[in-house]
Amino acid sequence: MTAPIRLLIHGASGRMGQALLRLCNESGNCQVVAAVTRKSPPQRVVDGVPFFAASELSGVPAFDVAIDFSLPEGFDPVLALCVARRAALVSGTTGLSEAQRGELASAASVIPVLWASNFSLGVAVLNELVERAAVALKGWDVDVVEAHHAQKKDAPSGTALTLGEAAAAAGAHVSYASLRAGDIIGEHTVQFSGPGERIELVHRAGSRDIFARGALHAASRIAGKPPAAYRVRDLLD
Amino acid sequence: MTAPIRLLIHGASGRMGQALLRLCNESGNCQVVAAVTRKSPPQRVVDGVPFFAASELSGVPAFDVAIDFSLPEGFDPVLALCVARRAALVSGTTGLSEAQRGELASAASVIPVLWASNFSLGVAVLNELVERAAVALKGWDVDVVEAHHAQKKDAPSGTALTLGEAAAAAGAHVSYASLRAGDIIGEHTVQFSGPGERIELVHRAGSRDIFARGALHAASRIAGKPPAAYRVRDLLD
Amino acid sequence: MTAPIRLLIHGASGRMGQALLRLCNESGNCQVVAAVTRKSPPQRVVDGVPFFAASELSGVPAFDVAIDFSLPEGFDPVLALCVARRAALVSGTTGLSEAQRGELASAASVIPVLWASNFSLGVAVLNELVERAAVALKGWDVDVVEAHHAQKKDAPSGTALTLGEAAAAAGAHVSYASLRAGDIIGEHTVQFSGPGERIELVHRAGSRDIFARGALHAASRIAGKPPAAYRVRDLLD
Amino acid sequence: MTAPIRLLIHGASGRMGQALLRLCNESGNCQVVAAVTRKSPPQRVVDGVPFFAASELSGVPAFDVAIDFSLPEGFDPVLALCVARRAALVSGTTGLSEAQRGELASAASVIPVLWASNFSLGVAVLNELVERAAVALKGWDVDVVEAHHAQKKDAPSGTALTLGEAAAAAGAHVSYASLRAGDIIGEHTVQFSGPGERIELVHRAGSRDIFARGALHAASRIAGKPPAAYRVRDLLD
Repeated sequence: MTAPIRLLIHGASGRMGQALLRLCNESGNCQVVAAVTRKSPPQRVVDGVPFFAASELSGVPAFDVAIDFSLPEGFDPVLALCVARRAALVSGTTGLSEAQRGELASAASVIPVLWASNFSLGVAVLNELVERAAVALKGWDVDVVEAHHAQKKDAPSGTALTLGEAAAAAGAHVSYASLRAGDIIGEHTVQFSGPGERIELVHRAGSRDIFARGALHAASRIAGKPPAAYRVRDLLD
Repeated sequence: MTAPIRLLIHGASGRMGQALLRLCNESGNCQVVAAVTRKSPPQRVVDGVPFFAASELSGVPAFDVAIDFSLPEGFDPVLALCVARRAALVSGTTGLSEAQRGELASAASVIPVLWASNFSLGVAVLNELVERAAVALKGWDVDVVEAHHAQKKDAPSGTALTLGEAAAAAGAHVSYASLRAGDIIGEHTVQFSGPGERIELVHRAGSRDIFARGALHAASRIAGKPPAAYRVRDLLD
Repeated sequence: MTAPIRLLIHGASGRMGQALLRLCNESGNCQVVAAVTRKSPPQRVVDGVPFFAASELSGVPAFDVAIDFSLPEGFDPVLALCVARRAALVSGTTGLSEAQRGELASAASVIPVLWASNFSLGVAVLNELVERAAVALKGWDVDVVEAHHAQKKDAPSGTALTLGEAAAAAGAHVSYASLRAGDIIGEHTVQFSGPGERIELVHRAGSRDIFARGALHAASRIAGKPPAAYRVRDLLD
Repeated sequence: MTAPIRLLIHGASGRMGQALLRLCNESGNCQVVAAVTRKSPPQRVVDGVPFFAASELSGVPAFDVAIDFSLPEGFDPVLALCVARRAALVSGTTGLSEAQRGELASAASVIPVLWASNFSLGVAVLNELVERAAVALKGWDVDVVEAHHAQKKDAPSGTALTLGEAAAAAGAHVSYASLRAGDIIGEHTVQFSGPGERIELVHRAGSRDIFARGALHAASRIAGKPPAAYRVRDLLD
């Protein structure tokens, strides 16, 4: 048995941070060695996990991968820490500036990094399947249909656009349709329509936990990889 | 056993007319007593069915129901014939003028008439189910998604709009999405999304024969009914 | 504005009881006047709701409907209370004996009662749609496909059998298929297959809260109804 | 522009043979140089295609690929002809004996051969996608659901079993469900169920022409390949 991956959870008091702390024991080979919150944590140790305030970041123990779901203002310190420690960074923090994206790209020459908007394992697999199908089914019509809860403003979803680009890369013309209804967590269908037959590739999210699980999966795979910018799908089995 | 319904097929050389002649034997209780074509028919009798040119319309034998899939210019004579003979009229002729629609409405006080854009039995049932569900699921979001072949120009399909109106009649806000892809004959989904649960009502057309079958089904049910304007769904079992 | 329905929640410490207490405020016109737990409640009042032990049942204040998700041994007292108070009873308690079912049937001549294994609003609507479709689509093949989490032992699900019976009542031959996979909460599809076309009626459960919501909906509708044994679908809008 | 692939259609009077002759012009780079029927053909040339009786097989002109949808007794001569001419063989003839399968395997060291039970392009792609997904989604439950017309006797379909084996090869436990209803040409769904998310991979056949199209596609790809036994999916783009 190999030693467990040592994780730093950055943004530990947010919704994703809490899900990461709750789910990290599901996969046997992870151990949270530090949970970092923006402000001073109410308790120093919770369920055996030591907590740190963002201002104490430099004093965290050794770790292999930082998982960051925080705010743009918290991103630079955790990136710098990972570079200094030669640890990997997995980040889903949204709203990064152009400059921050540039720093992330630069860091990829020193450490393994992964930034993604959707960490679901299933969506990563779906992206790969769509790319493959689009090559084999040249000339077929491609439609991406996505459904999300009524409160979601943007359409098509970022995930739908990524799926469409995977098909478009093979030359397909891609159309989009978006449904906003009820409390649907997220469903994406990519339909390939050819003469007399169709293929439908569907992903259904039943719980928001899949995003935390996917981030943990990615963290467990990225540890020890050569420095580079990875995508979730680069870390699939 | 009851006597078979005596049918007049008006527009017998068109695509629908040919399908009607081919399929009328499927249901045991129909008999085509006259097939009427716009121009002189090449043969006077085909498979036991007597053919007539439109100019010979007044000379056709007694019939119970005329099924008309012809052109606007052929509509007035067959309507007049049905009124004169006190026979029912089932018509799917498109492009009727306002005046012709008025004549049809007037005729409904004398004979049973039915005009429809979609004669599929399944779509008629779906309309009824949507209307019922929309009443019972008040406050749920309603989406109508339809898919047709890439050549279809108008969107949403007329059938999708009818389905949406069935839901809107119960006060639902209805959204539409249309896919145009491959050679899909026609698929309609009405999705009701509530808190924590969804209902999807789907119709899939696998063959264009369903429109001819539906017209024959309607003809077999409308015969002998009181004068009125019927919808396909009014003639369901 | 009408006075709110006064509810007694029987089995308030169970999973369903807790969901009922949590969700009863969603619909504006319910008020929990008593929550009854098997043993002495740790607190006498929680969020304004008075709690009682089962042994104190006779002392609860006036109520309109009791919602009971308890155990067979708790059923007789709450039924007797409802009869004595002339209040309605909505129960989802499983494992009732034949004798208890008999008592429930007898009580239906005095008070409105409803016992169901599935309180989802959507499933109740689906049952009604299936029954209607089966009559209109005579001769079409009917398949009921259901999917549930891998831990569910029985197959087909009770809900699938009820749906199948709704179709069989119209003379349809019904086939069943069951999937046991992942953590699917519950999906039921009833497919009607005719010549050249199909109708699929689908229900997807995304959250177990729908069962509590359905029970609350039923309670709000059953209050004030004449004595009788009702089904969830008898109380739809 | 390259020279067209020269095809020999063996079994030209059967249902598949007729579809092959009808559809071979869809793809621009095929030319039927000989159509072979079991008995003497009623006409020597139809639409520019020369017809031959099976007894005249040795006299057919030069060809690149033979497409064989005939009977077991016709298989040996066409295989021998292909070997003698060093042409490729694409066969969908069912009911071959063990000995005939052995001969086919031996011939694969001399010419490119392909035998398949399902030539649909979409199903070939689906097989590949399933194999990929099963590797990336280890530990997820896999269900294969197929639907065919009510007359189909065997279940699960051969295609469903092949799809299931593609998933099982990656270690997945696979369950099967079969629906027999209406006149469904063929639908196959492979569902992967993991914690909180699902992927569904669906193929829908809308026309039997897809099998002839797939065979023509395979023929156009196999011409000029090195001797070996190919699968449809080995010849995808």
